[in-house]
Amino acid sequence: MTSTSAGPVTHRRQSRPFVWEGGAVLAYKEADGTFRSVTRQVLTGAEHGQGTCLRYFEVGPGGYTTLERHEHTHVVIPIRGRGSALVVDRIVRLALHDVVFVPGWGWHQFRAADDELLGFLCAVRADRDRPVLPGGEDLAALRRDPRVAAFIRV
Amino acid sequence: MTSTSAGPVTHRRQSRPFVWEGGAVLAYKEADGTFRSVTRQVLTGAEHGQGTCLRYFEVGPGGYTTLERHEHTHVVIPIRGRGSALVVDRIVRLALHDVVFVPGWGWHQFRAADDELLGFLCAVRADRDRPVLPGGEDLAALRRDPRVAAFIRV
Repeated sequence: MTSTSAGPVTHRRQSRPFVWEGGAVLAYKEADGTFRSVTRQVLTGAEHGQGTCLRYFEVGPGGYTTLERHEHTHVVIPIRGRGSALVVDRIVRLALHDVVFVPGWGWHQFRAADDELLGFLCAVRADRDRPVLPGGEDLAALRRDPRVAAFIRV
Repeated sequence: MTSTSAGPVTHRRQSRPFVWEGGAVLAYKEADGTFRSVTRQVLTGAEHGQGTCLRYFEVGPGGYTTLERHEHTHVVIPIRGRGSALVVDRIVRLALHDVVFVPGWGWHQFRAADDELLGFLCAVRADRDRPVLPGGEDLAALRRDPRVAAFIRV
């Protein structure tokens, strides 16, 4: 890492590809059965002066993030591997460096391919609300679309 | 592209690698002799609800961005090719997916390798000040470090 005398480091290298120095590879969130094989690294935060946090999530082969929604938005850019996502009400196949936007209150879930991991950058506001999980009526509504029904994991 | 009924598109694909649908490949800025071989694409903006803009810059082989500084910060992640940067007062060699932070008022300039382009994501606040170019005293101060003196292009 390269630091200036104060404030965040100015150059965060990787100790190996997709593992950044100066931060831990964290559990995605408290294990609650809503996700599988997901790690999280925090790349930037409020101290970087943009009001946002940038995180890197990695989903192992066959894994998935929590199906959830919230008021705050996501900007997501896959940078490793292969996968797909539910974004609001559509299933999208992700190519590296596609830009995915999850609008406020849009349902979303990211899944790695069965035989390959999926790693992506995800930007959020530093000051944000907590995610909400789907209830029975939400799931019923989502499952009206057979593609969505086949995709989601809860 | 995949849209919801209103608001920004939820999935911006690439028509070819590193060229995103639904936006133009723009000139870096008005030609003023301070840079060479740089293009710009705007990936997200204020309409994405995070108070930031995400841009993709591509610097051709041998090219460089403007040596400048400003109050607002940069978060930069190289995602294509090879290059190096002046960040505040140090020259750093960039690996893909390193995280570079340019603090407020830090001098910075990005250069591609002589034989390979450099492409990077760059996040900024949507509401930001305009860059300032170095004056004679600034350049003299920067050039006191021989590595910086050899690196910068003005």
